[in-house]
Amino acid sequence: MTSAGRGKEGRKDEIAELARRRGFLWQAFEIYGGAAGFYDYGPLGAQLKRRIEEVWRDFYTRERFYEIETTNIVSREIFEASGHLESFADQAVVCKHCKSFFRVGENVNVSEKCPECGGELEAAGEFNLMFQTGIGVQKGESDERTQKKSEGYLRPETAQGIFLNFQRLLRFNRGKLPFGIIQIGKAYRNEISPRKSLIRLREFTMGEAEVFVDPREKNNHPRFEYVKDRMLRLVPAGEGEEEEKSVGEAVRSGIIANEYLGYHISKVGEFLERIGIPRDKLRFRQHRREEMAHYARDCWDAEFLSERYGWMEIVGVADRGDYDLSAHTSFSNVNMSVHAQGDAQGEAEPEKIIPHVIEPSYGIDRIFYALLESSLYEEQVGKEKRKVLRLKSEIAPIKAAVFPLLNRDELKKKAEEVFQKLRAASIFVEYDDSGSIGRRYRRQDEIGTPYCVTIDYETLEDDTVTIRERDTMKQVRVPMVEIKDVLA
Amino acid sequence: MTSAGRGKEGRKDEIAELARRRGFLWQAFEIYGGAAGFYDYGPLGAQLKRRIEEVWRDFYTRERFYEIETTNIVSREIFEASGHLESFADQAVVCKHCKSFFRVGENVNVSEKCPECGGELEAAGEFNLMFQTGIGVQKGESDERTQKKSEGYLRPETAQGIFLNFQRLLRFNRGKLPFGIIQIGKAYRNEISPRKSLIRLREFTMGEAEVFVDPREKNNHPRFEYVKDRMLRLVPAGEGEEEEKSVGEAVRSGIIANEYLGYHISKVGEFLERIGIPRDKLRFRQHRREEMAHYARDCWDAEFLSERYGWMEIVGVADRGDYDLSAHTSFSNVNMSVHAQGDAQGEAEPEKIIPHVIEPSYGIDRIFYALLESSLYEEQVGKEKRKVLRLKSEIAPIKAAVFPLLNRDELKKKAEEVFQKLRAASIFVEYDDSGSIGRRYRRQDEIGTPYCVTIDYETLEDDTVTIRERDTMKQVRVPMVEIKDVLA
Repeated sequence: MTSAGRGKEGRKDEIAELARRRGFLWQAFEIYGGAAGFYDYGPLGAQLKRRIEEVWRDFYTRERFYEIETTNIVSREIFEASGHLESFADQAVVCKHCKSFFRVGENVNVSEKCPECGGELEAAGEFNLMFQTGIGVQKGESDERTQKKSEGYLRPETAQGIFLNFQRLLRFNRGKLPFGIIQIGKAYRNEISPRKSLIRLREFTMGEAEVFVDPREKNNHPRFEYVKDRMLRLVPAGEGEEEEKSVGEAVRSGIIANEYLGYHISKVGEFLERIGIPRDKLRFRQHRREEMAHYARDCWDAEFLSERYGWMEIVGVADRGDYDLSAHTSFSNVNMSVHAQGDAQGEAEPEKIIPHVIEPSYGIDRIFYALLESSLYEEQVGKEKRKVLRLKSEIAPIKAAVFPLLNRDELKKKAEEVFQKLRAASIFVEYDDSGSIGRRYRRQDEIGTPYCVTIDYETLEDDTVTIRERDTMKQVRVPMVEIKDVLA
Repeated sequence: MTSAGRGKEGRKDEIAELARRRGFLWQAFEIYGGAAGFYDYGPLGAQLKRRIEEVWRDFYTRERFYEIETTNIVSREIFEASGHLESFADQAVVCKHCKSFFRVGENVNVSEKCPECGGELEAAGEFNLMFQTGIGVQKGESDERTQKKSEGYLRPETAQGIFLNFQRLLRFNRGKLPFGIIQIGKAYRNEISPRKSLIRLREFTMGEAEVFVDPREKNNHPRFEYVKDRMLRLVPAGEGEEEEKSVGEAVRSGIIANEYLGYHISKVGEFLERIGIPRDKLRFRQHRREEMAHYARDCWDAEFLSERYGWMEIVGVADRGDYDLSAHTSFSNVNMSVHAQGDAQGEAEPEKIIPHVIEPSYGIDRIFYALLESSLYEEQVGKEKRKVLRLKSEIAPIKAAVFPLLNRDELKKKAEEVFQKLRAASIFVEYDDSGSIGRRYRRQDEIGTPYCVTIDYETLEDDTVTIRERDTMKQVRVPMVEIKDVLA
């Protein structure tokens, strides 16, 4: 942010205001007063979010991951096995005066006064964070066992859908380890009192990758050499001191436990950089033992430095060990072990092992927020201020805007033609002929459109157009046939 | 289906078996015994489904629709307004003997004997089809009003999310009608007893388009002339007699009520044809008054002729009139009327109108099923039979497979190179070196891969490869540099 004199509060409002006004996103059920923890993506927001997801999919597909799609509603027994029914819970406190509930942690504790009204707080027990629902006809008189059978939950992570299908996926990969599966989709957590807009949602989108690996091979990633020189800002759990190290060095010195974990931490860094998260606002922090999820052996968060929220998790990379496959083996009585190959030197006997899982888990909405926050600049241009969203061209919702210079039929007709041609070439362009050209530029700057193509009377004569670049505001005159190349 | 002597039952098992074995889809929670109405898409199925969705998105984007993304969990008040709480319900019967529940309709009635055990059935009342959940901490002692406030439902259609945001979307479109919005996402219906695999799911994917139009303009679609000559097989509600008519003729003679409805029925036909639904297995049937949804004034279903299930709905095109916007206006007290332009002739005064909605609503999973069923052929090739999935190249999950002719290092290395190059060009290819070349061809035929690229010793000498086409099984020898062009 280049503009001075704005506090954290001001900045936040600016982003929320821009997001609402320009059609990126806003609170869901607005006309009924909204509901905490639920947001809707408008036309530009949905497009930006989809671009993040498409780049993510492409990124892991090149790593030879296959994508699957499993259900949002999941039967109770799955979460009995996974431990979520027992352990996926937060402590709550309730205000004796105004009856509001709060999640214990961060800023709220039972010894404090109510953040809403200053009343006295008291412990209100543990609340499971999963949304519950009933599958099929709910019979009034049924016994407890039948009742449980019809209990369903909205998944709190997409990962379980992958673990459940492990055997079919292994067969699809012809019985060989390692292999990786991705899934992008909604997940749900019934947060006790979500108050941080996009940062703590009750319904959100995750992109998860599950890598299944022979535990004896965790220190032997076949492509580790390609990532080992990437420099990372690391905060190990122990002493908590931040250090800048290469991935190779971090694995060698034991800060990162093994090559598989190191490889995927490095890939997370590469992806975030590719979509435009600034390097100087990114670090990797290892979880302390007490903050680790019940299934994790080790976990590193990629954290983004928000002007508003401070360091916040946007991706987690966990070593889940054999926790999930072992749990489902024992609860379903379906054996999930694999006939692993002996090492190349000898050991003709295939051995039975339970694969370990390395899991990079991306919070797509938080990444979306981080991109908006870190891309928005305010600049002085002559006597005016302009707001500009410096999104990378690859993820910008609109690739280019097409304008007639003036509101005249012959220019509008030509501009419309250019617009149609670009759309037909699957380039997502917008057409705009309302207001002055300066105002149209400002609007496109604010929504992050990298290029504006203007049609004027010269165009009618010699088939050239003006292309203006968002960040430099430089204009070049190019033949119409070259528009596509310039945009690409 | 070219093969003779297979009954409906045999055919169905064949498709389900192929889908499971080859990684298209299977029942969810299989290792825990499965749950009726829930399916998971495996690697090939997820890819095919995504291709259908991408073509759909592209199709409507070219029509200048914008996409949005709204929540799956929706507050109770929205469904009070929309009428779903009161009217979105089915009648159930229960077997006195085995206690199974069934939905009344199609094959089950209260006067019949139980389809499971032959026992006596009795009426069991009306069941709302929405999945219910609680948002926030569920307080034991709270009163009815607080309880209702925290009630949420999983959306039974994606459409409400669009209606709720109508005002913001209108502003995004600068206050002008008509405009169109699309949404692709999950929807949920707690079916009483789903027994038809992919045809009646409890969790499914919809692609919905909502067109907002000035009611006085419904007979004046600006691009109607481009679609008016498309021939459709129509079954009007009245006499129920099937007739083949052009869209223009159907609108002129009043069979289809207006140009907007006609335009979008035609577009549905165009889309289904584009992705490969055979014309001779498609018809449009108008709803009889008693089968119409509570919000609809008129509705036409695009029906696919399944060998297994007979005519089944895959898309519905409804005229929802002003039902939804009026309902939300009166429940939320937020006015959703629009200052419409007077006609070009005069009427300087802007008039206030409530837009009407035309809604094409696609069942993506049913379309997926229809494509599998209508694409699967069994043919005699010499002494062998081959199964081949004749999917259009545009939607096939794998675009091409790359093989080394023999399992030799020098061929494998070269094939791997070709594979990497095509992947880098964002062409979704697979590499396979296991088993005989004939067996590899059969595998690709069965999953619908249009091309196989084989690397042999000649390749090492002159950089040419063999490309084999799925349907004709013809092979051509082409220079390696031309592979991309042949695949495109």
